[in-house]
Amino acid sequence: MTDILIDRILEKNNPTVVGLDPQLSFIPQNIKEQAFGEHGKTLEGAAACFFAFNKLIIDAVADLVPAVKPQIAMYEQFGAAGIDCYIKTINYAKKYGLIVIGDIKRSDIASTAEAYANGHIGEVDIEGERIVVYNEDFITLNPYLGADTLEPFIKNCTLYNKGIFVLVKTSNAGSGDIQDLITDSATVYETVGNMLYKLGENTVGSHGFSKICAVVGATYPNEAKKLREQLPNTFFLVPGYGAQGAKADALKPYFTNGIIGAVINSSRGIIAQKDDKNFTKSVRQACIDMKNDLLNSCCQQ
Amino acid sequence: MTDILIDRILEKNNPTVVGLDPQLSFIPQNIKEQAFGEHGKTLEGAAACFFAFNKLIIDAVADLVPAVKPQIAMYEQFGAAGIDCYIKTINYAKKYGLIVIGDIKRSDIASTAEAYANGHIGEVDIEGERIVVYNEDFITLNPYLGADTLEPFIKNCTLYNKGIFVLVKTSNAGSGDIQDLITDSATVYETVGNMLYKLGENTVGSHGFSKICAVVGATYPNEAKKLREQLPNTFFLVPGYGAQGAKADALKPYFTNGIIGAVINSSRGIIAQKDDKNFTKSVRQACIDMKNDLLNSCCQQ
Repeated sequence: MTDILIDRILEKNNPTVVGLDPQLSFIPQNIKEQAFGEHGKTLEGAAACFFAFNKLIIDAVADLVPAVKPQIAMYEQFGAAGIDCYIKTINYAKKYGLIVIGDIKRSDIASTAEAYANGHIGEVDIEGERIVVYNEDFITLNPYLGADTLEPFIKNCTLYNKGIFVLVKTSNAGSGDIQDLITDSATVYETVGNMLYKLGENTVGSHGFSKICAVVGATYPNEAKKLREQLPNTFFLVPGYGAQGAKADALKPYFTNGIIGAVINSSRGIIAQKDDKNFTKSVRQACIDMKNDLLNSCCQQ
Repeated sequence: MTDILIDRILEKNNPTVVGLDPQLSFIPQNIKEQAFGEHGKTLEGAAACFFAFNKLIIDAVADLVPAVKPQIAMYEQFGAAGIDCYIKTINYAKKYGLIVIGDIKRSDIASTAEAYANGHIGEVDIEGERIVVYNEDFITLNPYLGADTLEPFIKNCTLYNKGIFVLVKTSNAGSGDIQDLITDSATVYETVGNMLYKLGENTVGSHGFSKICAVVGATYPNEAKKLREQLPNTFFLVPGYGAQGAKADALKPYFTNGIIGAVINSSRGIIAQKDDKNFTKSVRQACIDMKNDLLNSCCQQ
């Protein structure tokens, strides 16, 4: 799946991923009126808002970007109605051929990890009936529990041609609390990076990257530079551009060659537009501006 | 909420938590026939199996134990129908006055962490309508992203009288990959423990424990002994007893005083019973056997 993601990046000449992290405050008034008019101010109403909003965003950016990244927390908070909206959003994006990165940051052990792996990037088995449930192309995972907990996911990467992005160095201010601890040989995040590199060695595809990818925050370019050197076959998902403060010209170390080696996420910078009347135009323009910003600075050969 | 959990442990004279981690292979044939007869071999059918199964388990153990711990992965794998079953299970357990520990192991930053915190241990705000969605009493969290990512949860612990169990040392074989790395001053898991201790200092209740609790696997008693000394005000959730191999006589270091200081989880050991005809009797007996095992060995004063 990393190969396919890179193909799409090359086709669209754009390493941007649009984060679908809706908040009710981002939603144009006419969408809210319709959804809450039909469902009331309920969980179903909120989920209906999000789905109508996501469809507008996806319609506006589908020809511009290779991938979208729905953040499951925003949907999960609304219970079953929210999860239904999350799944419908994935299916809607896939109709356009977009790659979907489910930002789920799950972590668990043994049969529990298997349940997450089968639900999200595989099939569940209900007495012999095999059902695809979430159907993301990639998901994000948390490495704190160790390599054995990643195995069911890695197995499904091969079985179902999927990919995973494992948190290495996250973009938040407190990410150093654990990730920057210095061990005998390296920091914790470098150790995680090396673990992923080894786990992915046998899954390297035609573009030279493995199915086991890494999340490396845009707000830590020095750390990214070291990781890029240590992990030449590891593809990066980079959150933190725009609203979180990272600028495009600091992102060059995340790439290996031109626009190859990383996808840069922006959520609020693209989907939170204040002008309700020209909402989809503004979303599309923000997406074009981001593409140009990346191509003109960090992705130059 | 830690105070209330300890009150219930004392009332029931039992530090057991029953893990509600259903698998279709655990479910008695008559339940499956009814659920699949009504819904087909669908996600709704699987969710209906789980809810009927959970009701049997809860009915059988509610007077014996202080708490249950549904594992969200088992439900989430079945999409919206699974999440609906997870929430119904929580509500059903609470009708008996059971404490519910949602084993969700979430981790994320900023507004995303807030969405998890509000959905699970708070209220979501839909245009002024405040709705309680999941309503667990405690949830489990993953610390890899750092202290700032725990803040929205800690805030809700105070606002809504809830608690969190943060992964410190997990029970799986590979838990050492990251958690046992030796840093300048301590291992990663000890550093996490110390972080939790500091974060919880101002939330210590009448039993002497804070709202910020720790997950410490039953399979690592030596590590638990050190943590118990370092973290006298931190309550432990202990997975790994029974099916994962840990014995009761190794669990004494997890407690501070008699049955105080920890809850010991068992999932498969209680809920996976082979005798369909005497299913609830077998579940109840397994729960009584576990209680006696704990009281006779690790929880002696």
